[in-house]
Amino acid sequence: MKLYNYFRSSASFRVRIALELKGLPYEYLPVHLVKGEHKSEAYAAVSPSGLVPTLETDEGELLSQSMAMIEYLDETHPQPPLLPADALGRARVRALAQLIACEIHPMNNLRVLKYLVRELQVSEEAKNAWYRHWVRSGLELFEKELQRLPGGRYCYGDTPTLADCCLVPQVFNGKRFDVDFGGLPRTMAAFDACMQHPAFQKAQPSSCPDNEA
Amino acid sequence: MKLYNYFRSSASFRVRIALELKGLPYEYLPVHLVKGEHKSEAYAAVSPSGLVPTLETDEGELLSQSMAMIEYLDETHPQPPLLPADALGRARVRALAQLIACEIHPMNNLRVLKYLVRELQVSEEAKNAWYRHWVRSGLELFEKELQRLPGGRYCYGDTPTLADCCLVPQVFNGKRFDVDFGGLPRTMAAFDACMQHPAFQKAQPSSCPDNEA
Repeated sequence: MKLYNYFRSSASFRVRIALELKGLPYEYLPVHLVKGEHKSEAYAAVSPSGLVPTLETDEGELLSQSMAMIEYLDETHPQPPLLPADALGRARVRALAQLIACEIHPMNNLRVLKYLVRELQVSEEAKNAWYRHWVRSGLELFEKELQRLPGGRYCYGDTPTLADCCLVPQVFNGKRFDVDFGGLPRTMAAFDACMQHPAFQKAQPSSCPDNEA
Repeated sequence: MKLYNYFRSSASFRVRIALELKGLPYEYLPVHLVKGEHKSEAYAAVSPSGLVPTLETDEGELLSQSMAMIEYLDETHPQPPLLPADALGRARVRALAQLIACEIHPMNNLRVLKYLVRELQVSEEAKNAWYRHWVRSGLELFEKELQRLPGGRYCYGDTPTLADCCLVPQVFNGKRFDVDFGGLPRTMAAFDACMQHPAFQKAQPSSCPDNEA
């Protein structure tokens, strides 16, 4: 498989975690978002919508949207499973993942931040406050949802799931913008457990070949 | 089942469509978003995160996040299926749904629009331009993704899927804000096909008991 991605992209990071958890080797193909490589003609042939990441399967199929990719990987390479075996458990894990992917992360997207600055003439300070607001308020909702679920080492149970694949990149993003993570015990315990897991370590931005830090 | 929802909420509309497609009866429990009923103590007992909709199963389980609910309904009530039988097809349909739910709709959320007005002092005109920008540019990406898929009556194939459950509410939202839908032939053909289907008609805002139009 091949993953067209960017070291700092949250959605890319999610898929890298899933690939590492499954132990699947893949070719890392960097697409530099800040340099605008996702808008190049070459990348348009890979992703008509110009979004990152794109997963190319061994059969040459090009897949978009990180959560859809992870579900595909889970269906085609079931071990270890990234979703629980029961329908209710799967609904819980997908809801946690979507709380991040639909309620928090979209507001942090580069093109949204650019719109704030260019079109709405928002100051750097107000842009950063926007960023922190959505991460912090979103993670507070995430914590409330975790609080009503049974405890476990990770977000849901004692093995990493799709929810952890989404949580960890979101916390990384928040750290870059100095988000306050206080008062989120279940959330941060899951994050800490993930970061002790080799798959999450291998997938993190600082381990990526295009890392600039 | 019970659906805590709001006639105009896109995410609520998605789940209503799925329930109607499956022919599942449900109790409609209105939560008035503009009046702030989702922030009430009563609703906090249903949804700690205060998000709408919430699906209460016959067993009393409270589910959040519309796409997770629809997958749950599809797993527990498989006929008619809202996802293709093959993993690649499911990845395609989930990616289309997520393109709307993760890239377009979050920017239209009431709490995001409120932040623009209250915190960033954005004018009514600039707020509406923001709304139209994300719907239009997002649906252009959606059209590009559809263009590389085989043709069919709906977004993917000849029966409605999770992708159609997400597309239709997004187009409804766009219509309220006078979005230009020109040059989106596959997208709008799928929308038109959906709106000839009784399930989509029964689920639409104007058919809801709390509709104010």
